[in-house]
Amino acid sequence: MQFHESPKFPRGFRCASRNVGLKPKAKDLALFVSEVDASAAAVFTRNQFPGAPVILGRETIVGGRLRAIVANSKCSNVATGAQGVESARRMAAATAAEVGTTADRVLVSSTGVIGVQLPIELIERGLAGMSRDLQTNPLVGAEGIMTTDTHPKALSVSVGDATITWVAKGSGMIEPNMATMLAYIFTDADFDSATLDRMLRAAVHVSFNMLSVDTDTSTSDTCALLANGLAGPVSEPEFLAALTAGCIRMSEILARDGEGAKHLIRAIVRDVTNEQDARRVAKSLVNSPLVKTMVHGADPNVGRLLMAIGKCFDCRIVAASTDAWINGTAVVRGGQRLDFDEAAVRATLTAEVVDLEVSLGLGDASATAFGCDLTGGYIDENAAYYSS
Amino acid sequence: MQFHESPKFPRGFRCASRNVGLKPKAKDLALFVSEVDASAAAVFTRNQFPGAPVILGRETIVGGRLRAIVANSKCSNVATGAQGVESARRMAAATAAEVGTTADRVLVSSTGVIGVQLPIELIERGLAGMSRDLQTNPLVGAEGIMTTDTHPKALSVSVGDATITWVAKGSGMIEPNMATMLAYIFTDADFDSATLDRMLRAAVHVSFNMLSVDTDTSTSDTCALLANGLAGPVSEPEFLAALTAGCIRMSEILARDGEGAKHLIRAIVRDVTNEQDARRVAKSLVNSPLVKTMVHGADPNVGRLLMAIGKCFDCRIVAASTDAWINGTAVVRGGQRLDFDEAAVRATLTAEVVDLEVSLGLGDASATAFGCDLTGGYIDENAAYYSS
Repeated sequence: MQFHESPKFPRGFRCASRNVGLKPKAKDLALFVSEVDASAAAVFTRNQFPGAPVILGRETIVGGRLRAIVANSKCSNVATGAQGVESARRMAAATAAEVGTTADRVLVSSTGVIGVQLPIELIERGLAGMSRDLQTNPLVGAEGIMTTDTHPKALSVSVGDATITWVAKGSGMIEPNMATMLAYIFTDADFDSATLDRMLRAAVHVSFNMLSVDTDTSTSDTCALLANGLAGPVSEPEFLAALTAGCIRMSEILARDGEGAKHLIRAIVRDVTNEQDARRVAKSLVNSPLVKTMVHGADPNVGRLLMAIGKCFDCRIVAASTDAWINGTAVVRGGQRLDFDEAAVRATLTAEVVDLEVSLGLGDASATAFGCDLTGGYIDENAAYYSS
Repeated sequence: MQFHESPKFPRGFRCASRNVGLKPKAKDLALFVSEVDASAAAVFTRNQFPGAPVILGRETIVGGRLRAIVANSKCSNVATGAQGVESARRMAAATAAEVGTTADRVLVSSTGVIGVQLPIELIERGLAGMSRDLQTNPLVGAEGIMTTDTHPKALSVSVGDATITWVAKGSGMIEPNMATMLAYIFTDADFDSATLDRMLRAAVHVSFNMLSVDTDTSTSDTCALLANGLAGPVSEPEFLAALTAGCIRMSEILARDGEGAKHLIRAIVRDVTNEQDARRVAKSLVNSPLVKTMVHGADPNVGRLLMAIGKCFDCRIVAASTDAWINGTAVVRGGQRLDFDEAAVRATLTAEVVDLEVSLGLGDASATAFGCDLTGGYIDENAAYYSS
């Protein structure tokens, strides 16, 4: 898949971002608009304390049509009760008025601190006139939704005559199980919302749902796909392939920018009895603090890999058929540590991307999980980040 | 429960520890002996790559009688195949010869690095004459099994005429689900092995199995209970109460000495639909990196508590009935963040013990989990600790 060197929007999509006073100076509000109504699908967090925007978003997406997405950072509008939902509704209404649509065609997201009421007046005031700022660089929208991200995140790719563009944020409180952080996907291809929904779920299953920075599933995760049809029909299999590749690429970008992370860890688990086991073992590897610190320390400590595989109590695992590789070097065969060139493997562990490959030798299923190393940077960031 | 000021052994138990050359200088071998055969029960790790000593131990404990425990640190004898099991057998045989019993009455443990063959000759040589060192201070035995522990761990308590004594080690790769690290429990009370087994499982269920330093379940966890009967019969309910209290106390000691830890975290979850949900939510709280760093940063970030509760997707949770307290101060009512005195709560978070209490408002079940904060010390220790 050839991603564009600089990300660009599909036909008819534009975005803007502003500082509206939630943060001292940095941008804290982003607006994404299609010039015509778009078919839409979305998936949300499985956390049982969903934020007000997720509660509202589940209602909104039932219509299958969106014209705009509005998202603020700094305050997540979670654990804010009826007043929070009312604020989310006002945010949708103010956006609809600004871009000339109805509130039921606006998806709202909020990200940031939990348990604080949304300063909705600041957002309403800030939205006024914002449609005049709309422009075509997706990175401008990405800037408006950053929290602890170190850089704005956008990608785009061509599929036939159409374009698919990803705009996302997220670097901590990330283990999606249903969707992920905030990830918005825009295309000018023509699909109905049912088809979009099916394709989005398939792509998310192998990408954002296999991503974990810290095992902590946010209360605000939202991933939406909007198709405004301006490029006409596109081959569905080609579109799905591109959508999936881009979601995987964006998952890798998010993992690499995990709080404090220095390495992307990919755990590739194959020859497993079934897909569920493969996913569980792959997740166990990227979630293990001892595997994460092993990568941070560039230390080929094979025992930690075995420990992380073996603690999947409910998966079918047979020691004698378990093999493993670190960055392509065989380190375990038949459940036993091999003699390998430690200095050479240690050297490969300094690379930004670390591949941990496991074969369980039992079947045909496989899965890949995306994670990052655990460093003092994560501790510093999260022992300091305060709630109000 | 009144624990003895200085831990002491029950009648007939003694221990010794030595450096036999596995570590450069520190003690690396411990021997625990009863002067008569003891009834015994044991539980082991659920990790699917159990070490050779666990494989052998499961076989040994079927007999229900033990005379001695021998344990080395530095090398765990895990992922070492048939040669590893043979080494564990030789370790049992050498111990039996030294203390005058048979190999099937010796429980073997090894802890330390995974994937390296046990230097069994060093251990055999070191065991020779070791019974002459046997003495009555349990802390001497605890010293021989330390790895990253910062201090040796032992406890004792009286039950009627009998004594119960705990000797344990462990500070990382700890989330027991079946047993824990190495924890040996000695008593001179008189019980048969079936009764010991039942009581041990009940005590472990609410103590070591609710302990997590880092979510990583070791391949070597072993918890054994030996009763040599020299004090005669003791009330079973009283014994079970003391056994449980001591296992909980030892779990707290282990969590407090978690790698890099500065705080013991107790997550007390009550008014839950069933015990399984209560255990899961309590574990989710002590395992969440964002809750752990929140405690490390003395930051009453209530959203992280809600996040960690809410990510238990399969548990029955109703936001409107969820309340929470930090060190006794109400911070959440009905799923919403309360206004509370942040400075006061922040001040309580500097205490060594931090209690996070949650009521789900749904039923009668409850559970308590034991964990610790996540600090730069954990990262330093585990990014440096090397495997050979």
